[in-house]
Amino acid sequence: MEACKPVINTGLRGVTIASTKISDVNGAEGKLIYRGYLVKDLAGKTTFEEVVHLLLFEHLPNHQELDSIRRQIAEQRAVPAEILSAMQQMPKDALPMDVLQATVPMLASYDPDIRKTDVESTGRMAIRLIAKFPTIVAAWDRIRNGKPPIDPDAGLSQAANFLYMLSGNVPDEELTHFFDTCLVLHAEHSFNASTFAAREVASTKAHIYAAVAAGVGSLSGPLHGGANTRVMQMLLAIGDVGKVDDYVASILDTGGVIMGLGHAVYQVDDPRAHILAPMSQAMGKRAGDTRWYDLSKALEIKGKEAFKQRKGKDIFVNVDFYSASLYYYMGIAVDLFTPIFAISRIAGWTAHVIEEQFGGASAKPTLYRPESDYIGDYCGPDECAFVPMKDR
Amino acid sequence: MEACKPVINTGLRGVTIASTKISDVNGAEGKLIYRGYLVKDLAGKTTFEEVVHLLLFEHLPNHQELDSIRRQIAEQRAVPAEILSAMQQMPKDALPMDVLQATVPMLASYDPDIRKTDVESTGRMAIRLIAKFPTIVAAWDRIRNGKPPIDPDAGLSQAANFLYMLSGNVPDEELTHFFDTCLVLHAEHSFNASTFAAREVASTKAHIYAAVAAGVGSLSGPLHGGANTRVMQMLLAIGDVGKVDDYVASILDTGGVIMGLGHAVYQVDDPRAHILAPMSQAMGKRAGDTRWYDLSKALEIKGKEAFKQRKGKDIFVNVDFYSASLYYYMGIAVDLFTPIFAISRIAGWTAHVIEEQFGGASAKPTLYRPESDYIGDYCGPDECAFVPMKDR
Repeated sequence: MEACKPVINTGLRGVTIASTKISDVNGAEGKLIYRGYLVKDLAGKTTFEEVVHLLLFEHLPNHQELDSIRRQIAEQRAVPAEILSAMQQMPKDALPMDVLQATVPMLASYDPDIRKTDVESTGRMAIRLIAKFPTIVAAWDRIRNGKPPIDPDAGLSQAANFLYMLSGNVPDEELTHFFDTCLVLHAEHSFNASTFAAREVASTKAHIYAAVAAGVGSLSGPLHGGANTRVMQMLLAIGDVGKVDDYVASILDTGGVIMGLGHAVYQVDDPRAHILAPMSQAMGKRAGDTRWYDLSKALEIKGKEAFKQRKGKDIFVNVDFYSASLYYYMGIAVDLFTPIFAISRIAGWTAHVIEEQFGGASAKPTLYRPESDYIGDYCGPDECAFVPMKDR
Repeated sequence: MEACKPVINTGLRGVTIASTKISDVNGAEGKLIYRGYLVKDLAGKTTFEEVVHLLLFEHLPNHQELDSIRRQIAEQRAVPAEILSAMQQMPKDALPMDVLQATVPMLASYDPDIRKTDVESTGRMAIRLIAKFPTIVAAWDRIRNGKPPIDPDAGLSQAANFLYMLSGNVPDEELTHFFDTCLVLHAEHSFNASTFAAREVASTKAHIYAAVAAGVGSLSGPLHGGANTRVMQMLLAIGDVGKVDDYVASILDTGGVIMGLGHAVYQVDDPRAHILAPMSQAMGKRAGDTRWYDLSKALEIKGKEAFKQRKGKDIFVNVDFYSASLYYYMGIAVDLFTPIFAISRIAGWTAHVIEEQFGGASAKPTLYRPESDYIGDYCGPDECAFVPMKDR
């Protein structure tokens, strides 16, 4: 019997709580694997639709399967008019992740399968969620800017269609390819906080929309999906590559953190960052202004150096570090970076909900139900004696 | 070093993952404790508002404090007209828990503190959520039945006001007292699935509305808060006390479960069931028809006997067993039982979110981030070799 690792008050870090067939994060070697495939092999060579098929149906699609899943997704993109109307009534300064979270249970109410609990129905609901997320995010960005939402175009890929619904312009091949690669890179990451939240809800046998809404809530947190927005806010605040040294020093002097450096699992560079960085650079060149890429690169180098020098430890870039400048170059509003994370990660969430509810023999017992240690006061050796209101 | 308990694929059952000052569930002795007080001492002697104060502010209120929290709750009950309008547009057969979950992030968009992250702001948002939950649930029941929502009455307690908004009639003292006691009994239960989901989301530093929406999603599950609805559906299906023997036999013959018997934590009767049962009986007498109480009692006795005889194990009633008939006697629609659970448990959820985000020295590191064990296929000793689309 190996020595028991303490579980209490550790945020379950390093504690293996379940088995999964969906993905593997090898933090020591910097490997991210979707159903057996290294993500670095998939990125740039597959479309998001192929990865959706891989995650939900456990293998990369052949031509026929790819045609089928593309068609299913493209056909399901429209959002009920009543939901768009409800969005029109929301305050224009509503946080985009709140809008997205609100629409998920609303979509549930229009899903013809919502009262069914079999795996096929859940799979159809998963496809609908994957199909509709970009429509909601793009519609909200237009609504809040006083513009009418743009109907999805079934002839476009998931990546191209989102950028089209956002701006009204069909993106060119390179831009589509870069954005598609971002969707591939963010699609899945094992038991991260939002996926764990979705699985936890699914473990009560709640339907997939209820579980996905929990995932959206968790992703909104600044320590999770909210981090890519905060990286860009940091880059904008620094503003100039010449100010990087001072910024790094001031952060380390005050015990702060450099956004986008460090990760709960990786002990080397996040493999996704190595794919995002050159895309950020290329988009900077396209835009004729590599400032945000250059600033990021300088911040990575200086931040790592200073961290090593001051703390004697290595620190590594994570997925949010270069995605920030990349999305910014794409002309996407900074506070949409996290919703964009969601329109990709919805693939992983739905795969995990299906595994949680239909995973079969290797699955854990239903219902995550941990215990806690009560450290509050009793009023003596026994429980507190109740004092009625009249005597208080 | 004690022998290490396996954590993998156990749903974290029996695994103590965090310390808390909010409540203690002693499953062996059948004790439920809110901040030092036995719930059996609080039930019937405190109002829900006193328990809200206890859970959020760590002590039972004195007269002045009770006046203050009552006023704060009563003043915050109204829901923005835009949200009621969005609810009017939802399909009339929408699941009430989906409607409730959708409104939570919508409420966030109207909260003046939504961009603040300090404990005082979070406390104000908690009170608003507690205040508004009954308004939403009652409004939805009226909207779906083609009736206009009823404005909250600031002169009524949380319990009386909810029943008033539901039916249009101010309930008498006994009915109010019983419903208030139900709210007290359901307010908190340590790291149950919905509270754990809310804490998990809060651990990312997402705001309290995002966390509470996750709690609502988790509570909606048939294995969690959805169970009280299923108990009543079972009672209605049995229909007659004379059919209890046959029902119990058929369930045990087919390997099914008797809804409301058994619990993940209690190894004795749930202490809350002992308080709910006499209220169900009293409400049956009031209604001049104790059928549903009598049926429940017979089912408890026969179910326990048969379970012992067939499986050699004891089984115990849980909180859902007698709350079902009790709510039914109150004239509440069966599919509102779970939303009613939510209008009470919101007190516990918000207390846990505050503890998760501001718990201080005893708190765990930010972000729940467990690990998983990849048991999926590689295509050989190493990762799968990528085959491009053209060759598939």
